[in-house]
Amino acid sequence: PLIPFDLFPICPFGCQCYVRVVHCSDLGLTSIPRNIPPDTRMIDLQNNKIKEVKENDLQGLTSLYALALNNNKISKIHPKAFQPTKKLRRLYLSHNQLTEIPTNLPKNLAELRIHANKVKKIHKDAFKGMKSLHVLEMSANPLNNDGIEPGAFEGVNVYHMRIAEAKLTSVPKELPSSLLELHLDDNKITAIELEDFNRYKDLQRLGLGNNKIKEVENGSFANIPSIREIHLEKNKLKKVPPGLPELKYLQVVFLHSNHIAKLGVNDFCPTGRRKKKALYSGISLFNN
Amino acid sequence: PLIPFDLFPICPFGCQCYVRVVHCSDLGLTSIPRNIPPDTRMIDLQNNKIKEVKENDLQGLTSLYALALNNNKISKIHPKAFQPTKKLRRLYLSHNQLTEIPTNLPKNLAELRIHANKVKKIHKDAFKGMKSLHVLEMSANPLNNDGIEPGAFEGVNVYHMRIAEAKLTSVPKELPSSLLELHLDDNKITAIELEDFNRYKDLQRLGLGNNKIKEVENGSFANIPSIREIHLEKNKLKKVPPGLPELKYLQVVFLHSNHIAKLGVNDFCPTGRRKKKALYSGISLFNN
Repeated sequence: PLIPFDLFPICPFGCQCYVRVVHCSDLGLTSIPRNIPPDTRMIDLQNNKIKEVKENDLQGLTSLYALALNNNKISKIHPKAFQPTKKLRRLYLSHNQLTEIPTNLPKNLAELRIHANKVKKIHKDAFKGMKSLHVLEMSANPLNNDGIEPGAFEGVNVYHMRIAEAKLTSVPKELPSSLLELHLDDNKITAIELEDFNRYKDLQRLGLGNNKIKEVENGSFANIPSIREIHLEKNKLKKVPPGLPELKYLQVVFLHSNHIAKLGVNDFCPTGRRKKKALYSGISLFNN
Repeated sequence: PLIPFDLFPICPFGCQCYVRVVHCSDLGLTSIPRNIPPDTRMIDLQNNKIKEVKENDLQGLTSLYALALNNNKISKIHPKAFQPTKKLRRLYLSHNQLTEIPTNLPKNLAELRIHANKVKKIHKDAFKGMKSLHVLEMSANPLNNDGIEPGAFEGVNVYHMRIAEAKLTSVPKELPSSLLELHLDDNKITAIELEDFNRYKDLQRLGLGNNKIKEVENGSFANIPSIREIHLEKNKLKKVPPGLPELKYLQVVFLHSNHIAKLGVNDFCPTGRRKKKALYSGISLFNN
């Protein structure tokens, strides 16, 4: 008797399909392959030559949880492309040619990586309704401070954000107030000002290495009382930033490769009856 | 009271750590970071600048299941580097500078990707004792037929192998006999000979596109009676390969972009009482 075609396990040619994971990396693919098993939860399409995500490319993939499209040549994503993938939680778009955050991203997305694209602008509605977007990595895009439209992060609960290797000249003030980690390394930030961290009261880790920071305004760090780690290496600081002794949970301060000529006895530790709640585990001051 | 340092959840700076997954991609790291949580099951270190995996880099990571080191600058892996990671099943080393298969890979490895490195030679003991290595992707390495030492795959049960974009001039005869899928696209194979598939009796999918194949010797395909899919597009064939009508499960034959000038009525389908057990779903003959 003839075996009908659809009894065979299907898998795009050259890919490996196992336990609802489809691996199709490094195949020279120029588009998202057809016949991806409909119950697939994870698709790895990295390191191909895909130029576009078309309207029906993800059709039927209603169980999709993670989609890796990094290291392709994607410059276009159809506004309806993610309509079928309502369960998508992790989307990796790094190292592509995108000029903006794709429109109509799945509302349940928890993690978006769009590192090393050509994003210049974060539109007001880019993340609208994406309440559970917790990780946002958008470093290495030509994004300056004006590129982030006011309100772009309203109602979005990002905990971990990276906008490193961009064109920021100051700490953006309109990022999500939920941030626990903020990484702004390798930008062109020139100073830390009093209101910079007003919104980010829960911040625990702050990366500001390799900027052009000359000064930290008195009181700036008082807004982030939970901070545990501050990276300010490779800047133009002439003295230890003020306010460190008041940060009871501060454990790590990187200040190497600045222009700090002398230290005060009270630059790091509290005096009098005030006490630290966590001990320092690392302070770097070399190359000053 | 002071909170001791090790009560805080640890995670390398700039990485995200959640449910035993550590994400550290695109951070410009030049080495594998310290303080990876010891219960980590998956580490993503892709797209960094790591040059080397050192002896103690993976120390303590006894639960590690998957390690992604692709897109780095790794040219050296210490022979004892994988000693702690006895549970490692998936290792991604694609797009690095390795000149050979790392020695002493974990014996339980199920998947190795070492695409686009500089591997010229597969030594006899490269995969020794790795009984459950099921997926091996080593395309885009400067590997020729002499580079595969006899016995290199003895006792290894690879099901899916890719050696595309290499320097093969014929089908290697010493690959694992367990193969279900073999992808040898984009090589310099000039002919298919009678004994080529002798060992690969279970083969279901065969990729030979974009080679220089002029002829398929009569009877070559009789050794692979389970074959479902043969890709021979972009070769130099002057006629449809012999033996296709005998392949009862054959469903897909790609023959486009060859030099096939005419077809015979019995080139594809069996005659007489013999019957196919699966119908053809795709035959391509354009651009001939």
